[in-house]
Amino acid sequence: MREVAILGVGQTPVAEHWDKSMKQLAGEAILAALRDAGVGHADALFVGNMLSETINRQQNLGALVAQEVGLRGIEAVKVDAACGSGASAFRAGLIAVTSGAVDIVIVAGVEKMSDSVGDEVTAALATAADADFEAAMGLSFVAINALVMQRYMDAFGWKHADFAPFAINAHANGQHNPFARLRHAVTEKEYERARMVADPINLLDASPTGDGAAAAILAPVDIARRRGGAKPIVTIAASAAATDSIAIHDRHDPLTLMASKLSADKAYAAAGVGPADIDVFELHDAFSIMAALSLEAAGFAERGQGPRMGLENQIGPTGKVPVATFGGLKARGHPVGATGMYQIVEVYRQLIGEGGATQVPGAKIGMAQNIGGSGAAIITHILTTG
Amino acid sequence: MREVAILGVGQTPVAEHWDKSMKQLAGEAILAALRDAGVGHADALFVGNMLSETINRQQNLGALVAQEVGLRGIEAVKVDAACGSGASAFRAGLIAVTSGAVDIVIVAGVEKMSDSVGDEVTAALATAADADFEAAMGLSFVAINALVMQRYMDAFGWKHADFAPFAINAHANGQHNPFARLRHAVTEKEYERARMVADPINLLDASPTGDGAAAAILAPVDIARRRGGAKPIVTIAASAAATDSIAIHDRHDPLTLMASKLSADKAYAAAGVGPADIDVFELHDAFSIMAALSLEAAGFAERGQGPRMGLENQIGPTGKVPVATFGGLKARGHPVGATGMYQIVEVYRQLIGEGGATQVPGAKIGMAQNIGGSGAAIITHILTTG
Repeated sequence: MREVAILGVGQTPVAEHWDKSMKQLAGEAILAALRDAGVGHADALFVGNMLSETINRQQNLGALVAQEVGLRGIEAVKVDAACGSGASAFRAGLIAVTSGAVDIVIVAGVEKMSDSVGDEVTAALATAADADFEAAMGLSFVAINALVMQRYMDAFGWKHADFAPFAINAHANGQHNPFARLRHAVTEKEYERARMVADPINLLDASPTGDGAAAAILAPVDIARRRGGAKPIVTIAASAAATDSIAIHDRHDPLTLMASKLSADKAYAAAGVGPADIDVFELHDAFSIMAALSLEAAGFAERGQGPRMGLENQIGPTGKVPVATFGGLKARGHPVGATGMYQIVEVYRQLIGEGGATQVPGAKIGMAQNIGGSGAAIITHILTTG
Repeated sequence: MREVAILGVGQTPVAEHWDKSMKQLAGEAILAALRDAGVGHADALFVGNMLSETINRQQNLGALVAQEVGLRGIEAVKVDAACGSGASAFRAGLIAVTSGAVDIVIVAGVEKMSDSVGDEVTAALATAADADFEAAMGLSFVAINALVMQRYMDAFGWKHADFAPFAINAHANGQHNPFARLRHAVTEKEYERARMVADPINLLDASPTGDGAAAAILAPVDIARRRGGAKPIVTIAASAAATDSIAIHDRHDPLTLMASKLSADKAYAAAGVGPADIDVFELHDAFSIMAALSLEAAGFAERGQGPRMGLENQIGPTGKVPVATFGGLKARGHPVGATGMYQIVEVYRQLIGEGGATQVPGAKIGMAQNIGGSGAAIITHILTTG
């Protein structure tokens, strides 16, 4: 298989972009990525998106976005795994390059949620849950996560305040990221006093949705090497995806993200590394409980001990396992189908030393993990440099 | 790149399956394909689907269907290009096998349209058109095709009756296919008298939608050869995809399916064949005008001369370019996101000699072409045997 490098990346701020359409957002991120990569053409485009069918009344996103960036005619398709769509598109683009079918590939994640009407977004997000057994009971997506968090606290003896470090770290990092939706620090007191959403998940346990797009340009590493340049070459050392039951009640263990474990273990094996080698881990902290469960399933913490990583100051940029270094889903924001590509862009920026105020010192190996549904589809990528 | 073979196929009838859910339909087709292939496991699942987010309120189809067929945990994702989703999923699965990332892959197309309420399907299908410039004007999908057909008739001097052979051939073939939605022959008189839908498209110009699922099992050809067996080995000689503007008014020429031409030309070059070598062509006859335009763009007829192929009796199973040999979209039915996989299954069955009453004598090279939108995303596959 051909080794694949990232030639460049681009992103828009996560915000309520009332003045831009979905295709304009995607176009902005892609054109920035093409400029960053120094290329003017691509052989194929893979778009990650979750909600365009309901919120934007628009399908055929591949063709739509290809035309928007002046590449009408090229192969283009949408890849979908709910909130895991971004990384799923990245994996599809990566496989296309490794197969030899194409050379230069654009992968973009995009979501334009502010086009919604009324409570459409809550209903649309619930389609990531099991329509027959969860959504049909009236469970919203945050309610499902609240049930998991409640059970987790009960099973392992944690209290709500023990999850505070996840929000505090994400916001501390996000305030330095010009692309982040929420750019203010939060304190433990603010965390504890935040308005309840679905007990025990309060506003500071939950990531804000938003509009946004992020993109990367992929090519065989030989092309990256021939081009040279000042930036370190970042390659994709491993890519793996796995699934679990959609409904939580079907899980063998509702407190283990089995698809996280399966995909992370595959990725570690492919890259020849282990959790201890990962310098930065962009995890899917849609809710603070998901941050804890991800740290455990991906091998950074013992079962039931995820919150300890935060309480022991191990998740900051200079900690043992830096997470949410640009704000994570919690502060950068969670434009659902685009999030997986924001994670890739952020790991890439850490590896080339563009982390700014939240740069992880000497980061050489980074991991991104994107989750679709309450752990139903999980995709893990490991990126390396030098 | 590794050469890839089809190990087996499965399909459900296209119908209104009131007694089966979307995942049950997908499961039925996949389990039939696994039985046909003689395998009990797969490394990955690719699902083609267009409307589950709106009609079935269900995303995460990869994980949903993987669990349904007893393969919880495997990599699984949905691939989407509107009505071209089936072939897009097939191409993604094919690329995954050629890349070496996986060996045994399931590709399934599924659509469950009868779960819709009121006129939801018409609105949902319009999402394949341009939301800002077509759907926003109130144009339904059939209305867009009606405008194209009207202009085509005007430009090239055809009258409505000249399109009759497309419907007559599709229904003549479909009546022998137990999986077809419409199993009755139609006459020229019936065609001319059919109820108008959107002038000049009448009921016999338009394909019926429906519920259904079709699946195929892919593997490196070495695995197929080692297994031996009585059935001829069918390999994928070429796969190509291309795009065009979504909105018809943006086209360089609204009467040329440029993405059909681009993807067919790429596929011919890759397979080392030309239109004259194709023994059977499963084209995307969602409307009779699309059958005419596909024959032209794919090189079987001169520009503006597609209807001549029907009038000169060249499209039947023993004609020069057999199309819709199992009924096509027109008579087999058009469960939108599943259609591309029905086409693959049908070309495969022709190549292994299971065409029954509509077998194309000595078929060795078959082509399937699947269209998303009014020509916005087009995917071409060429399959060969012995």
